[in-house]
Amino acid sequence: MCSLLTKAAAAAAARRQDRLRVALRGLGEQSGASSVSPAGDGRPRAAAGAPPRGRRRYSTGTRLSDGLLFRQLFESESSTYTYLLADAVSKDAVLIDPVLETVDRDLKLIEELGLRLKTAVNTHCHADHVTGTGLMKTRLAGLKSAISKSSGAAADVLLSEGDRITFGNHYLTVRETPGHTDGCVTLVTQDEGVAFTGDALLIRGCGRTDFQQGCSKRLYASIQQKIFTLPDRCLVYPAHDYLGQTVSTVGEERAFNPRLTKSLEDFVAIMNNLNLPKPSKIDISVPANLVCGVHHV
Amino acid sequence: MCSLLTKAAAAAAARRQDRLRVALRGLGEQSGASSVSPAGDGRPRAAAGAPPRGRRRYSTGTRLSDGLLFRQLFESESSTYTYLLADAVSKDAVLIDPVLETVDRDLKLIEELGLRLKTAVNTHCHADHVTGTGLMKTRLAGLKSAISKSSGAAADVLLSEGDRITFGNHYLTVRETPGHTDGCVTLVTQDEGVAFTGDALLIRGCGRTDFQQGCSKRLYASIQQKIFTLPDRCLVYPAHDYLGQTVSTVGEERAFNPRLTKSLEDFVAIMNNLNLPKPSKIDISVPANLVCGVHHV
Repeated sequence: MCSLLTKAAAAAAARRQDRLRVALRGLGEQSGASSVSPAGDGRPRAAAGAPPRGRRRYSTGTRLSDGLLFRQLFESESSTYTYLLADAVSKDAVLIDPVLETVDRDLKLIEELGLRLKTAVNTHCHADHVTGTGLMKTRLAGLKSAISKSSGAAADVLLSEGDRITFGNHYLTVRETPGHTDGCVTLVTQDEGVAFTGDALLIRGCGRTDFQQGCSKRLYASIQQKIFTLPDRCLVYPAHDYLGQTVSTVGEERAFNPRLTKSLEDFVAIMNNLNLPKPSKIDISVPANLVCGVHHV
Repeated sequence: MCSLLTKAAAAAAARRQDRLRVALRGLGEQSGASSVSPAGDGRPRAAAGAPPRGRRRYSTGTRLSDGLLFRQLFESESSTYTYLLADAVSKDAVLIDPVLETVDRDLKLIEELGLRLKTAVNTHCHADHVTGTGLMKTRLAGLKSAISKSSGAAADVLLSEGDRITFGNHYLTVRETPGHTDGCVTLVTQDEGVAFTGDALLIRGCGRTDFQQGCSKRLYASIQQKIFTLPDRCLVYPAHDYLGQTVSTVGEERAFNPRLTKSLEDFVAIMNNLNLPKPSKIDISVPANLVCGVHHV
């Protein structure tokens, strides 16, 4: 097969195969037990090289720890994902990035499942939608709002690097990942099996850096140092997706993210040339989100 | 607390608690090891009764079998979920309900993950979107399309009750669940941990029954006999959701589905009075889907 390829094409194919190997470490393969099977085995074009094989370790896309209840919810106007996590035994729950328009839906589910919502946390001060934390606090006695200290926003709990958000026997650890905004955090489960990356790392993309203290250099460093250092198998659940994708893995993003596989210089150039329109709700959302989504406090 | 309730309210609360118990069997609780803790423990209103407690068995929402790669994908115009399943070792894959408009996205993911797509299956002959199976077959050599024999549609593989769709060491079993259309099937993983219910059972809803051989009595029987007989813990992944919900469980739907918790008579009355508009794409989609989404074959 290779005799038909030019040198450049062969090099490109080898790079793709390397990326595939990295990504597949997160897809049910033991990274240390690989042996490459022959290429040309009928796989789709451009992925003909067989991945390394090893014994199964875990499924992908959806497996979380035992005893952890998990739901992904979507708000279609802002394409925002809200995540509900709960201790399946104690029923203590955490909600990540609730949206004002879907508060009723989320509270109904929490009620039906018999959960006790302890904390509603925002991964950052959103510009594209109003958070649901303020309204939720008026509905659920004892609910605490949380956001990073660096966001400059008000909340019951102000988070910093290494802080834990506890619910029953589970907790999320805060990793500060600024760059989209100063106050962006990534929340990581205790087994490092899942990362809620907010607007720092998106699936095959990342948050924009052209407003709200945005800085592409900081974002690049945050993702490389705080997210790409997680295990390849770690599931990536972002705050948004605009293409109908629901989940990725650190290994996949390291291998295939079209921005983050670039050098810092190339990344900065890409981010400087996105030419995105201003979010339509920014002038409403940011002031509201600085006070938990409550306009008049 | 109960002394403040009227008799009717107390009965309603007891019914709610019963439903909660049923639903929670699918949420990390052992169904046979329950003991009820006292009510009034600070849970949200109307869910104050504590659920049964038992040792943890599994997480919910997302855990699938070891070695099974899983992705949920969404097409926003028709609010359709497409599901990718693969054997994490052999890389053999199945795609459920691909949509014409998102074929490129799905094939790119399949390529990146190094998967070998064996079968693209439709849960029924869709009326709201054109399937992607026909276009995919032109892109992937060896790909087989599949749909139920009762659908009357053409495909490489015509499925009937009990048939298996195999990919690597995994398979999906066909359960015929007519009622939305004559040819609707539910696809169930071999451990009965996940059911892809198509348009038969939706999250807190069900498929309409007012066109394409629709019959509410048949749909009611299909769901009660073929889906609600699955374990409470079984995850329910439908073909559509219009409210941003991504997954449910059989236990939850048995407890909280506002249509399926009703008697047959009440269900039929509800379905007869939905007064939904005709799907805008039905005159294009159905003829195309009868031939795998290919207009000119």
